[in-house]
Formats: sequence, structure tokens, C-alpha cells
Amino acid sequence: MLENMSEKYNITKYSGGQFLHVEDVIVNEFPLTIFVNDVEFATMVCTPTHFKEMVVGFLASEGVIRFSDEILSLNIDESRGYAYVTIKAKTTTNQEYYSKRFIGSCCGKSRQFYFHNDAKTARTSTSTTRITAAQSIYLMNEMQSSSLVFQETGGVHNAALCTPEEILAVRTDIGRHNALDKLFGYSILNRMPVRDKIIVFSGRISSEVLLKAAKIGVGIVLSKSAPTDLAIKLAKDLNITAVGFIRGESFNVYSCPERIVD
Amino acid sequence: MLENMSEKYNITKYSGGQFLHVEDVIVNEFPLTIFVNDVEFATMVCTPTHFKEMVVGFLASEGVIRFSDEILSLNIDESRGYAYVTIKAKTTTNQEYYSKRFIGSCCGKSRQFYFHNDAKTARTSTSTTRITAAQSIYLMNEMQSSSLVFQETGGVHNAALCTPEEILAVRTDIGRHNALDKLFGYSILNRMPVRDKIIVFSGRISSEVLLKAAKIGVGIVLSKSAPTDLAIKLAKDLNITAVGFIRGESFNVYSCPERIVD
Repeated sequence: MLENMSEKYNITKYSGGQFLHVEDVIVNEFPLTIFVNDVEFATMVCTPTHFKEMVVGFLASEGVIRFSDEILSLNIDESRGYAYVTIKAKTTTNQEYYSKRFIGSCCGKSRQFYFHNDAKTARTSTSTTRITAAQSIYLMNEMQSSSLVFQETGGVHNAALCTPEEILAVRTDIGRHNALDKLFGYSILNRMPVRDKIIVFSGRISSEVLLKAAKIGVGIVLSKSAPTDLAIKLAKDLNITAVGFIRGESFNVYSCPERIVD
Repeated sequence: MLENMSEKYNITKYSGGQFLHVEDVIVNEFPLTIFVNDVEFATMVCTPTHFKEMVVGFLASEGVIRFSDEILSLNIDESRGYAYVTIKAKTTTNQEYYSKRFIGSCCGKSRQFYFHNDAKTARTSTSTTRITAAQSIYLMNEMQSSSLVFQETGGVHNAALCTPEEILAVRTDIGRHNALDKLFGYSILNRMPVRDKIIVFSGRISSEVLLKAAKIGVGIVLSKSAPTDLAIKLAKDLNITAVGFIRGESFNVYSCPERIVD
């Protein structure tokens, strides 16, 4: 796995007032173009691991599929960077809405969605899972210490699908959304119930990250970094507990604090 | 400006084994949908500052316009999050290629482009600008110390357009590409020559960041963080000097080191 994530480069280092020629480890970045029923759907620029999980997670995130048995075939051409997907539905009706603005109603409950496919696929959490402060800190430390690539290159995001007690899967990517798509695909391909699970994430909780968590179906997102205001609004709206700045023995809870217990 | 970038929230803080109710500063995230000649073009999720610069820079980056006089009108509806642009060209011929994969030739010089509009707009640098190690470190420190929002919220990227001696403009955004689009728009709207300029950037040099620098037209990119392998390949191909990990008194040069002098 690791040999796909990074490679060695000869670089020039400036240190102590001198230019030196040294070897450095650089994180890989790979463009993968997804075709659905022979139509170009999207290009993801990603860390080249777990392609099938990423494609399945991305298509589920965009509302193209919901379950793995809707996929008739999925082939990856790594040399060209193409993924060919055949699905049961004749046309990818959601493609026309991909990255299109969602024009919501101005009256009634105002949701913060801005993309059409998000409004279709992001679910309000009904999770009753609880987690302690100590478990939250433990899961973040466990995930971060398991990531060799980050320590070597300083350039990737880690995401983990967890129970309150343990990490079930860690996925790594240079794109925050890709790392989460890989976990989404992992849960779909393994037919894993997610309502009682937790997402642990190394990067910022942007609206995109929060929406991915809602699509995956978890009730709790734990992050090492800061959230945005739009992510907090979405978290409150979708009943998701957003926790940020887990560092040392402290953290911040931005929404639905009742799921974090002492 | 700053009041548009962040706002105060009541949150729950866990620290010293206790849950406390405190006030925190959260960075803003805003969806702006761009219409070109009445057709929806794209939605940018951004820090809500410098909208006109960002829209102009984004449209130039996608090859829709090259110069500011091609824009007949540009109106921002901040309350709805819409930007309406009228351009001279009757149709936005590049829209059909937006985010579409660029299928390059397999023979001859193999370029690393993966998006069609990048292949059209990214230029090989002919810059003869040189910068010293001390100037590189100075510019990074200057930019970072000027950013209040980052210090308050920990959640934004900074980008600056500079000469070797000084910073000309700093732009801030939660999206790395948006911060660079704002600088691109700044240079276009001010009809500023860019071949002799430098981009200083707080985040990672992904392929997207490197391509934006090539589109803006600079020859040197200075970053506080790591590059990807694809960004290094693009930098070598486009004759751009990519410098990363500027921290303290050291940094790494990943491509075209001849522009960094002692």
C-alpha cells in the first residue's frame, strides 16, 4: 500500500545557510476519471489507494447508487487512470445535477444545502451512540499514530470509521473528501451498519466534510482541526455532533453535545 | 473585511477534565454560484471576501476570459450567493469542458494535465526573476504574520502576490484554489504584469495549486507545506520553481532551483 502513496525525489534543501542535494519522500497525487455506463462522470484527483471503495463512495455520495448490488461491474484501469462503472439504472439521472446549485425554498425550514445532490443524499442523523471524552481523545491519537505517510510527507488527510471503543478502518488521501469517500465505499461494500459508528478526521470540518459524514450516516464527527460556520449550521440541522481541535487532553464541541459524555 | 471572514459561536469546551461553555471564533464558509450569460457555470464554496476578484480569476483560470475588458458586467447578489457575469463571447464554449478529463496524446512530450481547461490555459513560465533564500523566508514570515484570521480560527489558507522584495496583495480563503483565484483576479483587474512576480502560499502545493500559479503566470511558488509528486512533475514541465516547507531558516526546492540564489 505505502509504495503507492509516496515516492522518493532528489531535491535541493536549504538549511544552515547552505544548499544541499538530498533525497525526500513526496506524496503521490493521481487523477482518476470515472465513467458511468460509458459516460464521463467526474475526475477525482486522489492518493492512489482503495480505488473501488473511493468510486463506490463517491457515486453513493452523489446519489447515483445506494447499495453495492446496484453496481453490475466496476473495473479500474490504473495505467490510464480510468474507472469504468456499469450500474442497473439505464441513465445516470443525477449527473445533470452534479455540482449544480440546489435552489431551495425560501419558506419553511431553511436548510443550508447548496448542491442539488447533497439535498438528495444527506440524511438527518438518528444515532443514539454516545462517546466519552477519553474515548474521543483515544481514537484521534490512535488514528494519527497509525499514519506513516503523514509523518513522512506531511501532506495527507486521515479518516477513520470507528466504534466508541476502536478503529475499524483508516483511509488516507491528499483530498479530504476522497478519504471520506473511501470510508463510505468501505461501509457499502461490507454492508456495514453505520448509524452507531463515528468518523474521526485529521482535517478541517468544512461543509463538504460534514455533508459526507451525513451521507455515510454517522452521528458523530471528531476532528483534529477547526470547523466552518456552514459546517456547524449543517451539523445542527442534520443532528450531527461535530467535535474539533482534539489536541492533548482537550477539544471543542460545536453541535449536539449530548452525545459526548463524561 | 474581517467581519465577513469569521463570527462568534457559543460552544462547549472540554479542558482539564471539565465541560465549559465558552465563546469561540469560527471561520465563515459561503457558497457563491456563478452564472455566465445567464447559464449556471459553477458553485464556489469560499470565504466571503473579494468576490469580484475571485470570479474574474476563476473564469480566467477556466479559459472563459483572458482580459478584464471581455467582461461586460459583473454583479454580485450577496444575499442569495449569486454572481451574474456577462461576457462578450455569445456562448461559454469552455463550459462543456469544465472539469472534463483532458485526453492527451500518448506520443511525443507527455504533459501531466488531466483537465481540458488546464491544458488550454496553463502556460510554461518564461520568468527570469531570481529570489534569494533570505527573501523567500522573509516573504513567508511577512504573509503569515499579517493573517489575523488564521491565528484566530486556524482554518484558512493565505496566498500573496509578491515581488522578491515585498508583498503586493494578500488574499485569504478556506479553499486553497479560491485564495489563488482572488490573486489571479486582482492581477487581471489591475492589469498587472505577473511574469516577474512570485506566489507565496500557506498550504500544500497540489497539482491544482501549481496549475493556478502557471495560469496566473508567475515563475516561482513558495509554500509553507509539502508538494505532491504530480505538482513537481507539472512544475518541471511548466518551468516553475516550486519551494516548500519554508519553516524557520530552511526550505526545500523541488524544481528549477536556478531561480533561488544565495
